[in-house]
Amino acid sequence: MPIFLDTTDADFDMRFAGLLGMKREADEDVDAAVAAIISDVRARGDVAVQELTAKFDRLELGVLAFSEAEIDAEIAKVPAAEREALELAAERIRAYHEKQVPADARWTDATGAELGWRWTAVSAAGLYVPGGLASYPSSVLMNAIPARVAGVERLCICCPTPGGVVNPLVLLAARLAGVDEIYRIGGAQAVAAMAYGTESIAPVDKITGPGNAFVAAAKRRVFGQVGIDMIAGPSEILVIADAENDPDWIAVDLLSQAEHDESAQSILITDDAAFGQAVAGAVEKRLEVLERRAIAGASWRDFGAVVTVRDLDEAVRLSDRIAPEHLEIACADAESLAAKIRHAGAIFVGSWTPEAIGDYVGGPNHVLPTARSARFSSGLSVLDFMKRTTIARMTPEALAAIGPAAETLAISESLEAHGLSVRARLERLNR
Amino acid sequence: MPIFLDTTDADFDMRFAGLLGMKREADEDVDAAVAAIISDVRARGDVAVQELTAKFDRLELGVLAFSEAEIDAEIAKVPAAEREALELAAERIRAYHEKQVPADARWTDATGAELGWRWTAVSAAGLYVPGGLASYPSSVLMNAIPARVAGVERLCICCPTPGGVVNPLVLLAARLAGVDEIYRIGGAQAVAAMAYGTESIAPVDKITGPGNAFVAAAKRRVFGQVGIDMIAGPSEILVIADAENDPDWIAVDLLSQAEHDESAQSILITDDAAFGQAVAGAVEKRLEVLERRAIAGASWRDFGAVVTVRDLDEAVRLSDRIAPEHLEIACADAESLAAKIRHAGAIFVGSWTPEAIGDYVGGPNHVLPTARSARFSSGLSVLDFMKRTTIARMTPEALAAIGPAAETLAISESLEAHGLSVRARLERLNR
Repeated sequence: MPIFLDTTDADFDMRFAGLLGMKREADEDVDAAVAAIISDVRARGDVAVQELTAKFDRLELGVLAFSEAEIDAEIAKVPAAEREALELAAERIRAYHEKQVPADARWTDATGAELGWRWTAVSAAGLYVPGGLASYPSSVLMNAIPARVAGVERLCICCPTPGGVVNPLVLLAARLAGVDEIYRIGGAQAVAAMAYGTESIAPVDKITGPGNAFVAAAKRRVFGQVGIDMIAGPSEILVIADAENDPDWIAVDLLSQAEHDESAQSILITDDAAFGQAVAGAVEKRLEVLERRAIAGASWRDFGAVVTVRDLDEAVRLSDRIAPEHLEIACADAESLAAKIRHAGAIFVGSWTPEAIGDYVGGPNHVLPTARSARFSSGLSVLDFMKRTTIARMTPEALAAIGPAAETLAISESLEAHGLSVRARLERLNR
Repeated sequence: MPIFLDTTDADFDMRFAGLLGMKREADEDVDAAVAAIISDVRARGDVAVQELTAKFDRLELGVLAFSEAEIDAEIAKVPAAEREALELAAERIRAYHEKQVPADARWTDATGAELGWRWTAVSAAGLYVPGGLASYPSSVLMNAIPARVAGVERLCICCPTPGGVVNPLVLLAARLAGVDEIYRIGGAQAVAAMAYGTESIAPVDKITGPGNAFVAAAKRRVFGQVGIDMIAGPSEILVIADAENDPDWIAVDLLSQAEHDESAQSILITDDAAFGQAVAGAVEKRLEVLERRAIAGASWRDFGAVVTVRDLDEAVRLSDRIAPEHLEIACADAESLAAKIRHAGAIFVGSWTPEAIGDYVGGPNHVLPTARSARFSSGLSVLDFMKRTTIARMTPEALAAIGPAAETLAISESLEAHGLSVRARLERLNR
């Protein structure tokens, strides 16, 4: 049974705080193992990667990269319907992300100083793609296309193939997104190889993409040597729905997150307790036959919740406390509720927008902040593959106008040479 | 003596690689100590913070925060010239950062789907300000003003006051920037208090600002619980200068980074070997009398470099390999060289723009990516205190157009409920 809460209950605040603080993932302390793997790869390069791949993926690798011929052969296995669907997804994701390319700026202020900034792309990026059950071609598109749109010159993928099993759709997605190199390696060793380079893998500047505890710990460790995206946690959905919805639609929406992972969390907030019960009933019905009913059922039972609120403004306030990764607003006045939301990774507005549309073909990115991190971070975007260089150009007049203040502050901070670098120039003007 | 390199030397590549790989900071392994401090603060709150402050800062604290009266009293000590300089700096930094506020977007595509995004501010941010020698009021402005411009509602500062010594300019800078709360605590305990909260400090969502090894390790550990900015390393400057410069100007520019820290690095690239020697001579002359000659001299001797190149395009290529935090281009054609640069935190264009202008009153932020991280990251900006929520709204027609592709991909990824959430709606349309 999921948790049923009502904001009119006397113990609501305590129980809601419990929901917020719920620990959904076991702490796996893999940090020491990961540190050892990283230093091994730094010291021994390809040989270390090969040995670790043999150990963890039961795979003896000679060359780490797929050849073009191997990729061609795998891609040829993809049925036409899936290829077309992936092409549509790639096209829509590209169109959305092209609108994110930021503008440079340059202006002259009243002193005559020219100021501004310029955006440039990261030179090389590496994308981590999990193997096995969570090997999603859609995630390849969501990571690789923003990088390409940003102008990243070299794009590589690491995707483990445990036991040699390859997902042809992952290779097709990589091809569609314009990935340059695909390595059949995974885990902390793949992250280390991309961060520090080996004989056969040139180092990258930025690593993105989801992964297991080893991958997450490795990304945290190499942060600074390279840039990383967020550390992803289990997926979540919050649905705010009024009684004017088909309970079954909302039920499958909740299940679409629950089926990802036993640690996933699906929450419904509604202003109608009976509707909440109806949705919970519809979930149980769907769970009877759903393919992944074991996973989805465990997630719903352990972490699912149905919260009844007094009105929908209260729903907005609770939603901001949750800061959900995915927020579906299926209400008559969905648009104005959406406008009030402050913390959410992605909002799906109206009953005709199931969250799953955003996982594949909507256009926005599906790599989104989990575990309440939408309070401070954003989904993956073109900006993650770019950086901004600020620009300043003084004229003698501008320096005369603002230089003395800089000198004063430099002296107050006991940084004499800072002041002298201004003073030396001002003296020339005063001659 | 700094290192002298010439790109025409036979061993240049090897020696330049040595320069790039130079280790300027000792690895301080404080991670275990920091982990213990963080869990102590989480468990015991204010009491732990007070005990740790007594231990590390030799300071018995009752109330952690400065009162308004205490702040007023300290601020009253600031001389008028310094106050005015700080006000000018605040005004110019605000004007620059106001131009960074990003725009929301919303559009309707050919299927009728509405797509877009919306930017919102982080609710609460905490700024770390070092105590002692590196307690810079300018850094308070550089961290706090972008947060305020972003729209952060609650802004607090932690600044240790070892032995009870307070820097009045830090408090004035905080006041000018509109900071709400100032706590006289530092180290990993301050980071832990801001990340997790205590009885007297409400938790924040984002922590920025420089600090020592303990602060850096604590920020790395709380990343995920809160957002953090970059992990700052020692400062660096690269100056590209032709022979048409006063060697003394370039010398003080190099020294303005060298005086920060013995681990700082100052590099000159020039197309004229004799000019390089003249600058090195001017540095030695300035070092004879510079207040911080011990620090600046050690930095210049241990990590300084003068590189002679065949031409200035070669300088651009070397600069991009260094990816400097600060890049000064003092050349006749500074503008077109600047346009060719890909990796730099900040560019100072032309001989009249000493880097120090950017530390105080230029307008751009002085919190910039160090240690070659300009390859993948940017200086602090308004965007660091905001996050983007993506928005999607389907119509029945839009869902009919793109939903089947989503369903196909969901099935290919074995995510049945994802597909069902689309299918349930499409079936309604087909009825």
